[in-house]
Amino acid sequence: MSDWLRIPPDSDFTLANLPYGIFSTDDRPPRAGVAVGEQILDLAELGNTGVFDFDVSVLNQPTLNAFVALGKSVTSRARTRVQSWLRMAPDGPIQRHHLVPMAEATLHLPVRIGDYTDFYSSIEHATNVGRMFRDPEKALLPNWRHLPVGYHGRASSIVVSGTPVRRPVGQLMPAEANHPVFEPTRRLDFELEMAFVVGKDSELGRPISVDEAEDYIFGMLLFNDWSARDIQRWEYVPLGPFLGKSFASSVSPWLVPLEALGPFRVAGPEQTPGVLPYLQSTGKNNYDIDLEVKVNEETVCRSNFRYMYWNMQQQLAHHTSNGCNVRVGDLMASGTISGQSPDSYGSLLELTDNGTRGGFLRDGDTVTMTGHAGQGAERVGFGSVTGRILPARR
Amino acid sequence: MSDWLRIPPDSDFTLANLPYGIFSTDDRPPRAGVAVGEQILDLAELGNTGVFDFDVSVLNQPTLNAFVALGKSVTSRARTRVQSWLRMAPDGPIQRHHLVPMAEATLHLPVRIGDYTDFYSSIEHATNVGRMFRDPEKALLPNWRHLPVGYHGRASSIVVSGTPVRRPVGQLMPAEANHPVFEPTRRLDFELEMAFVVGKDSELGRPISVDEAEDYIFGMLLFNDWSARDIQRWEYVPLGPFLGKSFASSVSPWLVPLEALGPFRVAGPEQTPGVLPYLQSTGKNNYDIDLEVKVNEETVCRSNFRYMYWNMQQQLAHHTSNGCNVRVGDLMASGTISGQSPDSYGSLLELTDNGTRGGFLRDGDTVTMTGHAGQGAERVGFGSVTGRILPARR
Repeated sequence: MSDWLRIPPDSDFTLANLPYGIFSTDDRPPRAGVAVGEQILDLAELGNTGVFDFDVSVLNQPTLNAFVALGKSVTSRARTRVQSWLRMAPDGPIQRHHLVPMAEATLHLPVRIGDYTDFYSSIEHATNVGRMFRDPEKALLPNWRHLPVGYHGRASSIVVSGTPVRRPVGQLMPAEANHPVFEPTRRLDFELEMAFVVGKDSELGRPISVDEAEDYIFGMLLFNDWSARDIQRWEYVPLGPFLGKSFASSVSPWLVPLEALGPFRVAGPEQTPGVLPYLQSTGKNNYDIDLEVKVNEETVCRSNFRYMYWNMQQQLAHHTSNGCNVRVGDLMASGTISGQSPDSYGSLLELTDNGTRGGFLRDGDTVTMTGHAGQGAERVGFGSVTGRILPARR
Repeated sequence: MSDWLRIPPDSDFTLANLPYGIFSTDDRPPRAGVAVGEQILDLAELGNTGVFDFDVSVLNQPTLNAFVALGKSVTSRARTRVQSWLRMAPDGPIQRHHLVPMAEATLHLPVRIGDYTDFYSSIEHATNVGRMFRDPEKALLPNWRHLPVGYHGRASSIVVSGTPVRRPVGQLMPAEANHPVFEPTRRLDFELEMAFVVGKDSELGRPISVDEAEDYIFGMLLFNDWSARDIQRWEYVPLGPFLGKSFASSVSPWLVPLEALGPFRVAGPEQTPGVLPYLQSTGKNNYDIDLEVKVNEETVCRSNFRYMYWNMQQQLAHHTSNGCNVRVGDLMASGTISGQSPDSYGSLLELTDNGTRGGFLRDGDTVTMTGHAGQGAERVGFGSVTGRILPARR
């Protein structure tokens, strides 16, 4: 490795990772970059040197959509060339010119998101929530083991890490009350999730099979599905979550390509009862990604993406099984990623047992989620998604 | 009126209407137009003659988003100029050059839709559905009269009128069965709705008040929210409709500006109990728009948009009350528009009393929805939204 890159030993952004993002600097508008150590390789600049075999104007745009839409055969070659360039380039003013210190850049949403879907694919989370909000004896609903339950979310309010989140105001029905009130949420929560970004358009009316699905998944992000539990509880029957979620969702800025995660594939949990043929998935389709949530300086949750009951291929196959099409830039989130032990629960709702053992988020709190797979020079990390709570608007 | 325009006496597209759309012809790609009688005024061509006071490149794009984003002060002036031009222009080859017979044009989705939201704002519909699917004694859920219930829908599968709709395949739980099956829906339905298109971006974190809301509503469309009742029933608890709806939704191609509907404003139904202050709405905020649904040649429903319990301003105020932002091109649908009499129910689910008095849609059926306000030279119509059912993919 070229020493001049100065990749710190515990960096999320090794040469094995090379996630894509959109960044701007004081002197230039948003463009594509790759995170490496504590720097950003300016892809728009590098593209001008002729190292790529595609129209490099896609790198000089405010989202990655056009680049991603080139298809995996092209983007994989681009990745290999970036990797080679970083390994081989000698130290020198021209090479350094292509690198921008991350601390001097502003990071933006990596993709223009078309539709955003949120799944509910952790059996531990669904069980915990079912136990609290519905019949504890039948915590999992009858459909849960047969299909990856999901719903459509709001795309407009997805923001990049670092964007402050204003405590939402909304309708709540206080205990013992006969009429709802319109007040700031008293139960503001995070949800630890990951999300994948769709890398290929599909055709309306043509389902994507489980086996084809991986070709449609470009890469992954960390995702915080901020939730106002009291607003959600009053509104969600019968049509699902709406304003309890749509005030903001936060994503990490660096889009980790699925191919970087290949070494961390693991088998998922056994699915019982067996699933219908269109959802059958064999082999290692989960990913071993360690996840952590901090509220301010305190670690409140350690979880892992491998716990997911339904994998991404199953989610995509189910989503399109009715003919629904997907488009480059669509975002599909996992649902809260809870593990089996109480310290692995991915929301304050679960961690506090519905507020009976501790409270929800306070104004001024900062929630930070991190995630990574592997160690040392092979580490593939996601950086972080963070957000600070602002007081409700008066 | 210029006789050469030949507007038929029963036309939806009078000089009082002038809805916007996107059309293409054999010789030219999609661009903006205005429907007038049985013709389309080519706005991109007219723009080149200097009649408008804005950058006319927005008229030569495949969606109306950039035009709509100019703001109502600009688009209202454009409307007035189009109206004057149509009234005043003499017959002549130059004038005729700007008009394209609608029969020779292909119509496209008028806007690039960002987020799509579906409300549930007809009290008759919500009551009918609640009676069938939940407790008949408590057909309306506790929150229904306190807030306009809504959910996020799928934007990618919204298609323009005329696009065939393939019968979706999906998971169903047959009566008496213990395991779900994966089969073509047996209960394919339409839902008669209208939708409005957002005409102005709002800021994340800043609610739109009921009084401001009209400024954010550019215009309206007819909307068919195709529904697979058996898929929906098995999947929708607890997170709401997903694949039972996301296989397709159809919109009419002509976007009727809200100002054209001004003469048809009426007061809505009284809301009891009274609503919270952020939803209080006074004056004539409903619209008297006659609606009709035909399955093949048979009229199956006659309804009216004025029946809506929650009006569009309330929907938008509620949607943004938590700080959720909206963007130009967002689509917000009303929910099924049912009236009080059985022949005014806006879905087969209700018209057949859950399939006990007649069936659902068959392969080859064509569903056509039409709507208009007023009569004669003052008539403001929406044309139609139509779709034919193709057999399920094998």
